[in-house]
Amino acid sequence: MDNEIEALRLVIRQFAEDRDWDQFHSPKNLASALMVEAGELLEQFQWLTEEQSKCLSDTQKDKVKDEIADVFIYLIRLADKLEIDLIAAARHKITINAQKYPVAKARGSNKKYTDF
Amino acid sequence: MDNEIEALRLVIRQFAEDRDWDQFHSPKNLASALMVEAGELLEQFQWLTEEQSKCLSDTQKDKVKDEIADVFIYLIRLADKLEIDLIAAARHKITINAQKYPVAKARGSNKKYTDF
Amino acid sequence: MDNEIEALRLVIRQFAEDRDWDQFHSPKNLASALMVEAGELLEQFQWLTEEQSKCLSDTQKDKVKDEIADVFIYLIRLADKLEIDLIAAARHKITINAQKYPVAKARGSNKKYTDF
Amino acid sequence: MDNEIEALRLVIRQFAEDRDWDQFHSPKNLASALMVEAGELLEQFQWLTEEQSKCLSDTQKDKVKDEIADVFIYLIRLADKLEIDLIAAARHKITINAQKYPVAKARGSNKKYTDF
Repeated sequence: MDNEIEALRLVIRQFAEDRDWDQFHSPKNLASALMVEAGELLEQFQWLTEEQSKCLSDTQKDKVKDEIADVFIYLIRLADKLEIDLIAAARHKITINAQKYPVAKARGSNKKYTDF
Repeated sequence: MDNEIEALRLVIRQFAEDRDWDQFHSPKNLASALMVEAGELLEQFQWLTEEQSKCLSDTQKDKVKDEIADVFIYLIRLADKLEIDLIAAARHKITINAQKYPVAKARGSNKKYTDF
Repeated sequence: MDNEIEALRLVIRQFAEDRDWDQFHSPKNLASALMVEAGELLEQFQWLTEEQSKCLSDTQKDKVKDEIADVFIYLIRLADKLEIDLIAAARHKITINAQKYPVAKARGSNKKYTDF
Repeated sequence: MDNEIEALRLVIRQFAEDRDWDQFHSPKNLASALMVEAGELLEQFQWLTEEQSKCLSDTQKDKVKDEIADVFIYLIRLADKLEIDLIAAARHKITINAQKYPVAKARGSNKKYTDF
């Protein structure tokens, strides 16, 4: 586990404890909350073109940053509750993805691996 | 920026470059992809009770771990594209949340701050 | 196509035309917008228990009703753009679901058909 | 309530009763399930350009049709559980939207009403 994520994990845990929110933080509810925040993130982009999404104004970028942060906070909290190491899980999944999407087949393609 | 996240950021960036996927990775598309993965994560919990979501079988937990990893990977990729520091953004947002949800008002409550 | 949905389809189409919003209403964007509204719907339930979600206050129910309406509006709009008949599509899918989830296997089970 | 939606509502209700799924169909869970299906719908579009999303192949369109149907089925089911009339709710919301987005202000704009 990473030092900075580990520090955040403890801050977020304390935040919930201070407010007696543990009762609401079942993995099921945290997965819902993460999804809701992911929706608020997507909302920032829904009517933009792809090009516009690459050149956000400062105001747009600040909103996006806050929504990204919310997703990250719930991701850390959910991983904490399930005793999952985020960094190790990501490293493992990248290895799997590399097998699903070998460079020779996936290069320049937007197809799902099941459609190769 | 954190050392382990920084290392992941570079691995994920290389993964996309090797496959010439940069053309698909506009912030708009990455926000959609993150949302789709958040849906696959929620799918694991949708018919479970809150109690069941706290006691996953090994098979269930492995699936959840992979979906959490997918969300994390797209979060890192999106933050990379927008030059957002995930750790700093989360720390900043926690400060804002502490103001929105002061302990005295938020204790034991599942209300949104706008409904206090 | 159903008379009442057909009438709504035309109202929603006119609404977009009056505002020159057709330029934003690609199927890709409408699918994102639908997702964002589905997130706002889920937000109403995220911290409630299942029991609480069955006994909403009038205020809660009004909010839920508006979010359900938003999802429905985008669903009709997306189906209009893709020339999909919602009623026929639902009838077709229910037939498929009946094959995936035969009563004998699915009775009382919350498992996905791929896990039977 | 509309005749065709009313007929679907009863078919979907019977489908759940036959499988003893009422126990899983709390509004909270149905809102999650709707969200998961909305994610599967969005997945069909996530790497397409807006232009590509307007010219789906027959195979792509069939997949999209099934996902749209799934969203619609859960929407009908959720509305049934909460005794909400989908058609009336949509008509009511369109009236509200017309006030939020008057033609003079909203014409050709992709801004949210709060940002006018």
